[in-house]
Amino acid sequence: MESVNDAGLHSRGQVSRLERSALRRALAILGNPPIELVLWNGEVIRAGGASPQVRVRISQRGLLLRFLFRPDLYFGEAYAQGDVEIDGDLVALLGYLDPLDPQGVGAPLWERLKLKFPKLAPHRLARARSNIRHHYDLGNDFYRLWLDPDLVYTCAYYPTPTASLDDAQQAKMEYVCRKLRLKPGETVVEAGCGWGAQALYMARHYGVKVRAYNISQEQIKYARERARREGLDGQVEFIEEDFSAIAESFDAFVSIGMLEHAGKDRYAELGSVLERCLERGGRGLIHSIGRDRPLPLNAWIEQNIFPGAYPPALSEMLDVFKSGAFSVLDVENLRLHYARTAEHWLARFEQSADRVEQMFDETFVRAWRFYLACAIHGFRSGWMQLFQITFARAGASDLPWTRDYLYGQGLPGQREAPFQ
Amino acid sequence: MESVNDAGLHSRGQVSRLERSALRRALAILGNPPIELVLWNGEVIRAGGASPQVRVRISQRGLLLRFLFRPDLYFGEAYAQGDVEIDGDLVALLGYLDPLDPQGVGAPLWERLKLKFPKLAPHRLARARSNIRHHYDLGNDFYRLWLDPDLVYTCAYYPTPTASLDDAQQAKMEYVCRKLRLKPGETVVEAGCGWGAQALYMARHYGVKVRAYNISQEQIKYARERARREGLDGQVEFIEEDFSAIAESFDAFVSIGMLEHAGKDRYAELGSVLERCLERGGRGLIHSIGRDRPLPLNAWIEQNIFPGAYPPALSEMLDVFKSGAFSVLDVENLRLHYARTAEHWLARFEQSADRVEQMFDETFVRAWRFYLACAIHGFRSGWMQLFQITFARAGASDLPWTRDYLYGQGLPGQREAPFQ
Repeated sequence: MESVNDAGLHSRGQVSRLERSALRRALAILGNPPIELVLWNGEVIRAGGASPQVRVRISQRGLLLRFLFRPDLYFGEAYAQGDVEIDGDLVALLGYLDPLDPQGVGAPLWERLKLKFPKLAPHRLARARSNIRHHYDLGNDFYRLWLDPDLVYTCAYYPTPTASLDDAQQAKMEYVCRKLRLKPGETVVEAGCGWGAQALYMARHYGVKVRAYNISQEQIKYARERARREGLDGQVEFIEEDFSAIAESFDAFVSIGMLEHAGKDRYAELGSVLERCLERGGRGLIHSIGRDRPLPLNAWIEQNIFPGAYPPALSEMLDVFKSGAFSVLDVENLRLHYARTAEHWLARFEQSADRVEQMFDETFVRAWRFYLACAIHGFRSGWMQLFQITFARAGASDLPWTRDYLYGQGLPGQREAPFQ
Repeated sequence: MESVNDAGLHSRGQVSRLERSALRRALAILGNPPIELVLWNGEVIRAGGASPQVRVRISQRGLLLRFLFRPDLYFGEAYAQGDVEIDGDLVALLGYLDPLDPQGVGAPLWERLKLKFPKLAPHRLARARSNIRHHYDLGNDFYRLWLDPDLVYTCAYYPTPTASLDDAQQAKMEYVCRKLRLKPGETVVEAGCGWGAQALYMARHYGVKVRAYNISQEQIKYARERARREGLDGQVEFIEEDFSAIAESFDAFVSIGMLEHAGKDRYAELGSVLERCLERGGRGLIHSIGRDRPLPLNAWIEQNIFPGAYPPALSEMLDVFKSGAFSVLDVENLRLHYARTAEHWLARFEQSADRVEQMFDETFVRAWRFYLACAIHGFRSGWMQLFQITFARAGASDLPWTRDYLYGQGLPGQREAPFQ
């Protein structure tokens, strides 16, 4: 790596022995990864031995306390604000930092360093959060810059690892339809339909009638316009309501990327909706981010990107079915596909970073970069899972005999040779 | 149906008005199915309308009280003893009787009939149970009469519904190997290996080294002899120990049909064994009978066939993984395959019924017929599930990209055209 240019370092105060020792202990806890820390006064701290792959520039002494208190929360915050700069691979850095929070529960780091620090008062996070949420709600133009053309904002399915994002989102929608075994003329209800891509795909390719629910006014408006433009508004109805408003009966239920936003206290309620709305031969699919065991979401992401989100453990997801009215037929963990999806999103986001900065500001760009890198790392490392659960009414007899039918025919993006 | 021949009816007492009314109310609760009841004195009771498909001959007045108290327990007992005779399809009859115990928890039926009966004292069940368990322990010759040649006493995998039992058990062993992604030279540990078929299959077809655990002395002895005979004793070691004795490290873990006998208080212990014994790139498969939600096993089967057995709900099975050290990759529900397996077992059992009666006695034959019919009905109707859970160390990176690899090549029994 090149020598450090001090430009952009805000504070010139001397580094104390305690600070230096705390950072060294923290690097030791990390197993002395190839990280170089450049402090506010230009002082460089490296783990012994390894040649640095990533440089972390810490612009202010005040950040140190925060990082030592709750790195899971304040590192993302500082990165988004530009108070920390990374030279090198952000995703690789996140991997090196994993041992800082091995339980994933946001335990204070300083306890493990055997140092004593005062608790921090809440700082400018509140402002940043409201900024980001404000921007986040701004809209479709932003997502259009880096999602696929169908605006599918959930994990794609890559028939091969080299498939494109666009193909993989088409393949995901097709794969979901196959898992649901849709037949022409059937009725489908979708809970949490985003911009409507899955609902329109089902109507277009499987000839089903769809009622799709979503509480986002803007997404519903977009989806309705698209249905009208494509002549599918007779087949697909978009409803601006919570899933609890579902009242009619349907042959199939699908929910992609809603459960992790619904909160686990609502899973039993979703189960009641399913009991009420699914026909006797009915089946369904729930697709959600998950965990290997119950854990809170990363605090920074929860506070800044997805307020109220909670990715459940599989055992928690099964609360949806605890009445016994349904049989789980199939669970598939697609976490590597989400890692790939987020890689594609981040690459496209970077291509439009200037445009995003014009639309919002630099902090917004940095926050989203950090969040997408966290997603790549989380799904790649196994901190996060993606579960697709297929289910049917308990005692249903017209079940597929094997899972062969899912794999018989080609999917978009399956032109390349299989990976293994 | 033909007219009733009274021969074999033991008791000639008159049927009281209360008894007649209780039976009529019970038939009404069942939705008046096409059942004809022939009572101890020859009196016939039918549900109005439907032409009878199955005749149930009840030889003694004393049975009535028992059926009205706990049909889930005493019906199997009376059938095994020959105190109830069935003319017609036993499996179909079990389906008609489902509404007697809609919660599957053995609730007294008389409460629903709004009649008052005294509680029953324990009767001759104890003797029957010890008889049957004694016989059950007698051995391999019995199972050889009706299992496949490899003595696989767990759910088979039928690539097509028309596959033979023998092919389907081979296909199951192959399918399990594929899910485990075994490579030559790897080490595998099996918990609960039965007569050793899966262990020997893995060694023979995948070139792995296997240590297989089982607490049944007789099965271990049989498996060791077979390994020696087939020249696989250098590759497969059979150990007469509980799974808690597993000490070494392995690349893969497999357990087929053990969890439902281990008791759910031992799932976390099994999880600890997995944490201890699986290598970093390790993966595993657990195959077990299960339920849609936590429920006790049918009381008669628990008392007479599988003492101590408990088929867990999927949410309970996940207790094995609650430490977070593993990621669930795949869950497949194969209940229809178990229904087919049990159909094949019962058909073969009937072909050898005379031989079994010579080895044991008529009660034994009837008890096993009843149990196999319960299995067919349980898996066909959805009262019972069969879950295969595939898992890997949390954060493992060499995961299969999709599930295509499971279905690419032929399996034994896959010659016929696909079912759908």
